[in-house]
Formats: sequence, C-alpha cells, structure tokens
Amino acid sequence: MSSETGTGALTETPAATAVFTAVLTEGPLSRVSLARRLGLSSAAVTKAARPLIEMGYLRELAATERTGPGAGRPASPLAVQADREFFVGVKITADELIGVVCDLCTEVRASAHRPLSDPSPGAVLAEVALLVEELLGGPGGFRERTRRLGIAVSGDVDRDGGLVRYSPFLRWRNVPLRERAAEATGLAVTVENDVKALTTAEHWFGEGVGAESFALVTVGTGIGCGLVVNGRLVSGSHGVAGEIGHIGVDANGPDCHCGGRGCVEAIAGTHALVRRSRECTGRAGLTLDEAVALARGGDEDVRAVFARGGTAIGMGIAAVANLVGPARIVVSGEGLAAYDLLGEHIRAGFERQAFGAAVECPLSIRPLPFEQWARGAAAVSIQSLVAL
Amino acid sequence: MSSETGTGALTETPAATAVFTAVLTEGPLSRVSLARRLGLSSAAVTKAARPLIEMGYLRELAATERTGPGAGRPASPLAVQADREFFVGVKITADELIGVVCDLCTEVRASAHRPLSDPSPGAVLAEVALLVEELLGGPGGFRERTRRLGIAVSGDVDRDGGLVRYSPFLRWRNVPLRERAAEATGLAVTVENDVKALTTAEHWFGEGVGAESFALVTVGTGIGCGLVVNGRLVSGSHGVAGEIGHIGVDANGPDCHCGGRGCVEAIAGTHALVRRSRECTGRAGLTLDEAVALARGGDEDVRAVFARGGTAIGMGIAAVANLVGPARIVVSGEGLAAYDLLGEHIRAGFERQAFGAAVECPLSIRPLPFEQWARGAAAVSIQSLVAL
Ligand SMILES: [Zn+2]
Ligand SMILES: [Zn+2]
Repeated sequence: MSSETGTGALTETPAATAVFTAVLTEGPLSRVSLARRLGLSSAAVTKAARPLIEMGYLRELAATERTGPGAGRPASPLAVQADREFFVGVKITADELIGVVCDLCTEVRASAHRPLSDPSPGAVLAEVALLVEELLGGPGGFRERTRRLGIAVSGDVDRDGGLVRYSPFLRWRNVPLRERAAEATGLAVTVENDVKALTTAEHWFGEGVGAESFALVTVGTGIGCGLVVNGRLVSGSHGVAGEIGHIGVDANGPDCHCGGRGCVEAIAGTHALVRRSRECTGRAGLTLDEAVALARGGDEDVRAVFARGGTAIGMGIAAVANLVGPARIVVSGEGLAAYDLLGEHIRAGFERQAFGAAVECPLSIRPLPFEQWARGAAAVSIQSLVAL
Repeated sequence: MSSETGTGALTETPAATAVFTAVLTEGPLSRVSLARRLGLSSAAVTKAARPLIEMGYLRELAATERTGPGAGRPASPLAVQADREFFVGVKITADELIGVVCDLCTEVRASAHRPLSDPSPGAVLAEVALLVEELLGGPGGFRERTRRLGIAVSGDVDRDGGLVRYSPFLRWRNVPLRERAAEATGLAVTVENDVKALTTAEHWFGEGVGAESFALVTVGTGIGCGLVVNGRLVSGSHGVAGEIGHIGVDANGPDCHCGGRGCVEAIAGTHALVRRSRECTGRAGLTLDEAVALARGGDEDVRAVFARGGTAIGMGIAAVANLVGPARIVVSGEGLAAYDLLGEHIRAGFERQAFGAAVECPLSIRPLPFEQWARGAAAVSIQSLVAL
C-alpha cells in the first residue's frame, strides 16, 4: 500500500503500473491506444489512470495540444506531468560526485559536481548530503517536490538489497548504501550499478524505448554493457552479466587483470591504450590526452593502438549481437572522447564479425557527457515509482 | 477455443497454462505448492486443473504413490498422465531423417531412421510421411493417441509462421514446412530450428528445468547455442541469436565462411578440425575419424588441433556466461564424440575466460545421441499443447 506522500511505489495494481509505465516511457497516448497495446479494456485503463490523474502525475492533453495527422473522433491523450515530482541522481566515481535534478521525464533541471578526496563510505556520504543540499536548496525550488534519490556506483551492486557488494574503484565491500544515504539525506534511496542505471535510462527514456531487447556499451577505463532481453534488464544468475570487457577476442592477446587473455578491456580500456602507446613511443610518462594528440597528429604507431582497440570493441559488440540479437545497440562512455580514433574501427570490427542479419542491428556511437551517468541514477529513482 | 479432439492449445486460461506447464515440467506438485509458486489461490488451481484431469492429461496421485518426507495433512499431488497423448518428433538432416515417438514426459517410446538421397522439399516430405507411418503403425499402438508432429531443421526457421526461411545444409529457402508436412502426414505440425528445439527440450524436460536462464551449446559441423533468458527463449530482433559459432575469439585466426575472422566455428567446427589435421599431417584425404584416431594415438600436432578447438569453444562459452550469466550451461552435440580430446580444453578455456563469479556457472559436457535432436522436435510439439 502506498500513498501520495509516502515513498513506496505509486501504482497499486498491475494495470496501473502498466498504464503509468507506458505513458511515462512512450506517452502521450490515448486511452484507446493504451487499451490496445496493454490488452486492457477501456474501462480498466480509465480506472487505472484516475488516481494517477488525481495525484497529478498524469494529465489529459487538451484538444489544442494534440499533434499529428488525422482528425477522427475526439481523443484525450494522457501525458506525464513532468514537474509533478523531481528526482536527484548521483553518480559516485573514485574522485568526484556528479549530481543532477531531473523531472519525471528525466529532463535535467540542475546539475552540480563535488570533488572527492576520501573515498571511504563515511566521507562520501557526507559529500553526497552536501551535494543534495546544494541541488535542492538552489534557485529551482526543487526541495518540496523531491523525495527520492538514485545513486549509481560501478561494481557489484545489489539493487533489491540496497547494498554495494564490491566496488573496486572505491574499494568498498558490503556497504549498505541505501540505508546510509537515506539517513544522510532524508530521501528515499535506490542504488544501482552505474552501467545498469544508464541502460535503464536509455531503455525507459532514450533510444531503447519500446525495444524488446537493447544493449548499451560503455567505453572508458572499464568496458561494460547493459542488456535488456525479453523486455527486462539481464542480471545474471551468478551476479555476472554484461561483462563485454572480458570477452576474449584475441587468443594470443595481452593478459588481463581478470585472469583472462586478450579481453576487450585488456586491448581497448583506457589503461591498455595508454600502456601500449607508451610502449610504441618509448615515452614512459605519456598520458591518454597526449596519446590521443599524437594519434590525431598522424603518429601511425599510436593510431594503430587505437585501431586495434576499436576493432576489439567492435568484435565484443558483434558477440553481443550474435548471441542475443538486440534490436539496437548504443555505444557510449567517456572513452569516446577519442571517438574520431575509435569509431570507424568499432564499426568495422562489428561489421566484419556480426553474423548474417545481425549486421543490420543499428549501432549508435556517441560520446557520453559525464552528467548522463547521474541522469541514469535519477532514472532508476523514477523507476522506483512503479512496482516492477 | 480448443477442445479435446482439436489440435489447438489444450489450456484455455493463463491459470490453466501455468498449472499444466508447472506439472508437466516440475511435477508431481500438490495444489498447495502450485498455488504458492504460481501466486494463485487454491480455488483457482483446483478450477484450472479440473478440465485437465477430466481430459485425462493430469491425474491425482494416490496417497500410496506419494514419496518424500513429512506426513502433515493429506495432499493429493497432481502428476502428468504420460501416455495420454503421444508426439512424433523428426529431425531432418541433409542425408537422414531421425524420428521418435515420445510420451507427454518426452520419454522416447519408439525411434526410426530413414536415409535421404534427395534433399528437395518434396522428396523429404514423402520420406517424412513414410517415417511417421513406420513409427505410428508399429507395435506400440501409438496412432490413435497421436495428433501432433514436431519437426526440427537447422537454419533460419520461423516457428510462428511455420516457415523454413533458409536452411543451408538442405539448400531450402522459404519452404512452408508446417503446412506441407500437415498435408503429408495428417498431423498438426510445429516446426522449429533444431538448436532451439533441443534447448526447449532441456528447458522443459532436462537440466534447464526451473532455471530463469539457461544455455545449450551444440558442437559439431556447426557450433550453435540456444539461450533462455528471463524465462524465455531468446530469438533475436534481427532473426539472429545464439550464434556462438561466429563469435571471434582470435583476432588473427582463420577466416570463416561467414566473412568473420577467428570464429569459434572456423577453429573448432568439424570441417576446421579436419582441414587443420590434414595440413599438419600432410595427409590430404584424412577423415575426422582418422584424425581422432591419430590424436588418441598420441600425435602431438593433431592433439594440438583439438586442443585449440576446445579452447576456442571454451572461450565462446565464457562469452555467453560473461554476457548473460545463465544459471547453467549444457554442452553437447555429435562433435563430442571426440569428447576425450576436447573436453578438458573446453573447460580450461571457459575457466580462464569466465569473469569473476561467472566461473561458478555449472558446465555439463556430455555427448548427444542423434536421437535427442528428434526428441527436441517432439518437445516443441508437446509445447504446442499450451498457449505460450
Ligand atoms: Zn579480462
Ligand atoms: Zn564465422
């Protein structure tokens, strides 16, 4: 049971969950088209929508607001009231917090950063509280309509249990982050793995909307993948899923920190690109930015390092396409700042290795502003409105 | 709407489908435990089960038939009446038909083979009719309780449309197999891709029972994979899924007929193993059996060919585990006749490349009698009893 002022799920029946989710992710939608796509009667749609309209989460569009062709008989499409509630999203990295305030449609309304000098849970939580205060106390007037916070962390996160089991970058083990962040901020908290959060954002509010299957690949220090199959995020029976970075694509390739050999990440992760650029230039202190500059300047050896990396990523993406056949794949991440060096090789590696019609899977390769990770966290918080 | 004598789905409500499927795959089960696991009331279970009992598909076990600990109050577990209906399963290969009669529990009751000299659809269908006649007209007395036939074919099969879109081994394109086989045999026909059919058999009646996610890997001329994720078989948005054979595991490996490089199949498929064994022995006419004999006899070069093949298969299986995290993986297929040469390398390649806890995924490696492919076809036919 939930109420307008509580922080449990907003929807109380499967029909209400279905209606709210459909309007949230694909609205505006008329009651007729909702009934058709959800296999409900019109009366059931009307009944499910009524409390959501009364609480102000959904609204009926006036005739003048309707767009698109066809006159037909008058419909009154249902739309989300975007500013009915706001959501804070925070991404925790090893040296920084990134925070946003989003509305119900994951539109970013405010953002802020805070550097982290101490990655211990206590210090991080104190900074999270300050970040939330900064975001909600600002000029947007978000505080009174904000009750929920989503937090995204890399590593092994138990969303249902609100627990960060293991986060290598932060060196956290078994941190009950949901409970501690709720104490620190007074908000209802959802925690999720950062790649899964980003995948959720794309699946509910981005390029993955409406797709039965969908993959998001992130390229950076780590190379990760979020997978939606049969309409649901894949979690993995043994706590492992989406580890595209540790698919072996070169039987004689470099050893990986995971114990594998020729892993995508051991060839194309940021550390691997820097290490190999150092080797081939003989410059021990070379940074990633310097390697990128050399490659852009025409250094053939360094260009070959990026080419090999891009090919490895493309082969990993092809493995995803060949195995699960997503409707579409988005490739993103901070590592795509070097997109001009990687992009064509990602695409070529994918096209060479995609089997048959899998090559038709649309590949969107685009850089990812860091703020988007925080937006992903907010999306997970929005998702907590509906009982999944 | 269906009836006892029709060949539509047997179950008419979602509750009936859930009850019948649960008893079929995991029974015997008491009404109490059915209600608990399906989230239904006891009354709903009783109501759903009644017509299935009346039609003879389910039966109540007598008290004396019950096993297991605990006295408690009397329960009357529901079990499947295995011989209520029989199902023919036929696997079509390029040079042979393999057929079985199975009962409702996929127990094989009879089997038969027929050589194929002409793989054209018309010739194959004539042989299918003769095979069915042989199976049903025999001493088992199956005919009067057999109404359904499942057919398994390698390649791109549209199960819902009853169409073989493309089968390379048979050189078939767009053959409306369901309709033509129904005409030829008088039975209600379901057609399915052979690997998917085998996966269905394992998921409903074998090692995959009860698993939310599950993978079956087949090793032979082709190397294939059936995947169950979130409880459902993965089909692939572009008609491609489970193509483990064309994951690239060696960036500098041999070219594959698919256009890729270093594909698992290009290293470990039967043709690749023979070709490389010929190369390293210099014996142009060497057969697979001869290569296996040489390896077993201690020929180090040929042993290395099988070792490399096994490692490639293991790397492909690790990619499956890393990406989708199945609860368990079964590795099978006629290629495992050389199991003693491949098995340990499959396992070692998997263990090296499985990421973190993914290595805990149980791997069952076992040979596959060819008859099992036909049993898979029968399982798909059994599945057509319930509206999925
Ligand atoms: Zn690795
Ligand atoms: Zn291939």
